[in-house]
Amino acid sequence: MDSKLDTVDHVAISVPDIEQALDWYGLHFQCEVLHRDHSWALVQFANIKLALVLPSQHPPHMGFYTAKAGDFGPLRTHRDGTKSVYITDPAGNSLELLAPD
Amino acid sequence: MDSKLDTVDHVAISVPDIEQALDWYGLHFQCEVLHRDHSWALVQFANIKLALVLPSQHPPHMGFYTAKAGDFGPLRTHRDGTKSVYITDPAGNSLELLAPD
Repeated sequence: MDSKLDTVDHVAISVPDIEQALDWYGLHFQCEVLHRDHSWALVQFANIKLALVLPSQHPPHMGFYTAKAGDFGPLRTHRDGTKSVYITDPAGNSLELLAPD
Repeated sequence: MDSKLDTVDHVAISVPDIEQALDWYGLHFQCEVLHRDHSWALVQFANIKLALVLPSQHPPHMGFYTAKAGDFGPLRTHRDGTKSVYITDPAGNSLELLAPD
């Protein structure tokens, strides 16, 4: 890791059924389930987390840690204590910008 | 990093203009351009690479290193020497499975 570069915390992809997706990713990859409930799951890979989300809850996105997160809009504090803002890049890709601790 | 877990090599997102996207990501993030040409670019973050691709070339996808890549279909050798196969998960998300060196 190069600490001068920003870190991508997670990638979130849409799946229609969280349990089914967890079964499939768990079968095919060496990964570790960090969180699971009816609406989303979080899976640890060696270098990054994969979020499985329902399309109704979140768009597919990448979550970046950046000291500039607050420059993009008001930060929202989530249940796990993280603070972030959702934006889109000029191409329309959804990004979550997380403020470092 | 936990070496027992599989590694996500890259995340690829679609952008209509590679240079414009490079400008935007370079302005907003601490990252390093590894490759750029008219059809795609590769940008290094601390823990993962971000590929910027034209929609006509590749679907948005995640690229996983897994020793089981060859179980999913014939591996194709790319110009940079990597060997991979593209699949979709049950939800239709595109994945590239790369064989470890």
